[in-house]
Amino acid sequence: MQEHGLSFYVASMAEKITPRSQDFSQWYVDVVLQAKLADYSPVKGCMVIRPNGYSIWENIQQDLNTRIKKTGTRNAYFPLFIPESFLKKEAEHVEGFAPQCAVVTYAGGKELEEKLVVRPTSETIINSMFAKWIQSYRDLPMLINQWANVVRWEMRTRLFLRTTEFLWQEGHTCHATPEEAEANTRLMLGVYRDFAEEILAMPVIPGLKSDSEKFAGALRTYSIEAMMQDKKALQAGTSHNLSTNFAQAFETKFLDKDGKQKLVHQTSWGVSTRLIGGMIMTHSDDKGLVLPPRLASTHVVIVPIMGNAATKPQVLEACDKIAQSIRDAASKSTLPYEVGIMVDKDETKQPGWKFFEYELIGTPVRIEVGPRDLEKNQVVMTRRDEGKKEFISLDVAPARAIEMLSTMQKDLLEKARAYRDASTQRVSSYDEFKAKIEEGGFFVAPWCRSKDCEAKVKDDTKATIRCLPLDQEFNPYSETGCMVCGTQNPGVRAIFARAY
Amino acid sequence: MQEHGLSFYVASMAEKITPRSQDFSQWYVDVVLQAKLADYSPVKGCMVIRPNGYSIWENIQQDLNTRIKKTGTRNAYFPLFIPESFLKKEAEHVEGFAPQCAVVTYAGGKELEEKLVVRPTSETIINSMFAKWIQSYRDLPMLINQWANVVRWEMRTRLFLRTTEFLWQEGHTCHATPEEAEANTRLMLGVYRDFAEEILAMPVIPGLKSDSEKFAGALRTYSIEAMMQDKKALQAGTSHNLSTNFAQAFETKFLDKDGKQKLVHQTSWGVSTRLIGGMIMTHSDDKGLVLPPRLASTHVVIVPIMGNAATKPQVLEACDKIAQSIRDAASKSTLPYEVGIMVDKDETKQPGWKFFEYELIGTPVRIEVGPRDLEKNQVVMTRRDEGKKEFISLDVAPARAIEMLSTMQKDLLEKARAYRDASTQRVSSYDEFKAKIEEGGFFVAPWCRSKDCEAKVKDDTKATIRCLPLDQEFNPYSETGCMVCGTQNPGVRAIFARAY
Repeated sequence: MQEHGLSFYVASMAEKITPRSQDFSQWYVDVVLQAKLADYSPVKGCMVIRPNGYSIWENIQQDLNTRIKKTGTRNAYFPLFIPESFLKKEAEHVEGFAPQCAVVTYAGGKELEEKLVVRPTSETIINSMFAKWIQSYRDLPMLINQWANVVRWEMRTRLFLRTTEFLWQEGHTCHATPEEAEANTRLMLGVYRDFAEEILAMPVIPGLKSDSEKFAGALRTYSIEAMMQDKKALQAGTSHNLSTNFAQAFETKFLDKDGKQKLVHQTSWGVSTRLIGGMIMTHSDDKGLVLPPRLASTHVVIVPIMGNAATKPQVLEACDKIAQSIRDAASKSTLPYEVGIMVDKDETKQPGWKFFEYELIGTPVRIEVGPRDLEKNQVVMTRRDEGKKEFISLDVAPARAIEMLSTMQKDLLEKARAYRDASTQRVSSYDEFKAKIEEGGFFVAPWCRSKDCEAKVKDDTKATIRCLPLDQEFNPYSETGCMVCGTQNPGVRAIFARAY
Repeated sequence: MQEHGLSFYVASMAEKITPRSQDFSQWYVDVVLQAKLADYSPVKGCMVIRPNGYSIWENIQQDLNTRIKKTGTRNAYFPLFIPESFLKKEAEHVEGFAPQCAVVTYAGGKELEEKLVVRPTSETIINSMFAKWIQSYRDLPMLINQWANVVRWEMRTRLFLRTTEFLWQEGHTCHATPEEAEANTRLMLGVYRDFAEEILAMPVIPGLKSDSEKFAGALRTYSIEAMMQDKKALQAGTSHNLSTNFAQAFETKFLDKDGKQKLVHQTSWGVSTRLIGGMIMTHSDDKGLVLPPRLASTHVVIVPIMGNAATKPQVLEACDKIAQSIRDAASKSTLPYEVGIMVDKDETKQPGWKFFEYELIGTPVRIEVGPRDLEKNQVVMTRRDEGKKEFISLDVAPARAIEMLSTMQKDLLEKARAYRDASTQRVSSYDEFKAKIEEGGFFVAPWCRSKDCEAKVKDDTKATIRCLPLDQEFNPYSETGCMVCGTQNPGVRAIFARAY
């Protein structure tokens, strides 16, 4: 009976997720919906983040929040609504965001005298407060972060990747000098890079955005760019040097040591629930979610194979003992998080159903405990990403579980990095680029920094400049001219790719 | 010079905060603004929560979130926007909330076909998802919580206590039976009571709301009611038994074990940033904020009195040593939180300025370290709420700091409880009530449960029924009739008070 149950579920669960090779977009949607990470809502373009997905966001928040606080930044909260006139104070900013705004025109039973925009980002409302709070150089640097929801009206939405409402953190800082502002912009880009690689196990390339892709109102935008399994790029976080653009619009000034009134130099930087989408498309497979251990809440699930009435109590007791011994081992280990361990004693579900369920929701380590294995003093352990069953002696099972978690986190990053590197090529001629663009991946090519060449690439191939990477290795002078127009010594190499 | 600086600051700081005895409302505003907990924003009725205030909210969230999760409830996130038609599905609900709604009519450059209400609370949008997710009794109970911002258009606002936008958590649960729903409503009320008393050190009375004060759409609303220092009541949290009211409107049904389709029984419950206002008005004094240690991030501040160039290095070294020894003592103590310790080495500010600053922002324990005290092998310690200087020998200073934190948390609760109890009186005649209402405080009186008597009290005295307390002691049969109309054996005693 159990065997039958198992194979039944093999069939019924396996056919639910579209394979990546068949339709990557549909595979992604299947994983998100079936792992119950998120769901479509009745409000156009807005999604519901379900508990399985929200717990990932909570883990992201907790770790990133600690990193942000370490830079001396403090959290605060600013209003959801922005008076329409504020948005208009910075010319590029309003031009960039106005088409995406949701506007409250009616409240408390009356037409509003001034319309209120639901924040698409908070530079303007926060500057109105900075202007009040900052008087002197003694008030600088002022380093503020906010965890909040924002709304940008989007025509085409995708779960996590692009939704009308999304959750994010937005940092906003004020500095006395342009050098300090630039240093903070780069510092936070580095925080994002480390976070993405250490926690999401998602390798990223930090770089400068081209002018046409920078934030509306910024002097300069940096981003971290990741590659998904379909070889498309995903912008995973941005850090902007705003110079004095918003300070000018809001008269955010300070009295400097030299007795002169000066405008503050500002930065802003953010990452969002989009990271969850990027993490899914980096690691997951045709069986469902693959979750880096740092983002899991339940790290180890123990599934009892009860056997018959005689063996059941022994099996359950053994499961509890193993759970406790892993807990003990974890507390003595160097793992930088609390290891969540669950024994799934639900008798209304077959072990086979459970195996597929835990693969679907991405539990990093599964341990099967059955009467026959117990006779041999062993259990069966499987790492989610590898899917290989290992027979492990009971006495080393706890150590092996800890080791699996530790290794899995590293392996996921290395595997993704190897995949990205193997899908990155240097090209020097535009013909070569056009011939290869359908293969997907990143293309590193010399570029003359002209908007015309950038636009031509986009028109011809739908690829865009993801960034001008900061890493030295990408940035030596080019032996050939700009890939598009041939201008000699263009000075920079850009990464071109099709992107989300 | 230092003495001069000190007395200068005594004068200049002290006159900033209006004394409670002079104008309690202005005192409250002064504390909130000057301790930089919050600020007015340019958006009518919306406030900015500044880092000093937001860190209190983070501590509230962290502790309460753990308590909520212990009940098996999981966090999720639902859309900010609610289609106008959803709000209208439950008749009482829309009647209650429609006048307070902010409405998006325009988005992405176009008029919307259906207007979107900015959530004032999320029963409706969440039910639309529950209806989709819940199929069978196996899916029950479904226990969901959300940390979010909500908007209720208010005519008269007060920082933290009543703002157009506020932050809160809202729990939403579905159960198979009315008994389970009622039990969960009461369970969460108990979680709020314990949380308010253990963490905010704010004594509360849990009780049932009268029908006229219950949540729009609920069968029954419970609340916890606190007393502020001006003897007015503050509703600090609510827990609603929604019965099947929303389930009916959204057809949230399940297939029960008996094979029948049934409506789920629901609860919802929430507390908000209002708690911060309640905490302030419970404990703070004319010098500024008094913060229960459980809500502080910096628990102990060490202020060096540098003396002259010769003594300065010794003093600073001693401060660092004391900080470290308190850290060591704290890690071995039973205090259930990480103790934050700061040495304020800023030389641009005088010790006297610092004393008043830390009193203003409510740092629980202050330690002064000066050269003369060090000669005597002692330091000066002051507990924020007591304000008494204690000369403590260096070797017991760490233990004393831990003890002060532990005792202060308890003392604040006991002091507030004693104050509340002393300001609570039993009355049995309406004449007595009317004669005493100007004294303020809680009045426990028999009530016949009629809306007319309730309305008469409000019209005559501006007092409302805060709750019908659940505690036995308040609830025996009454020896006299309803305070207002004289109906015999009214069965319940109510707490009447003027409220925020």
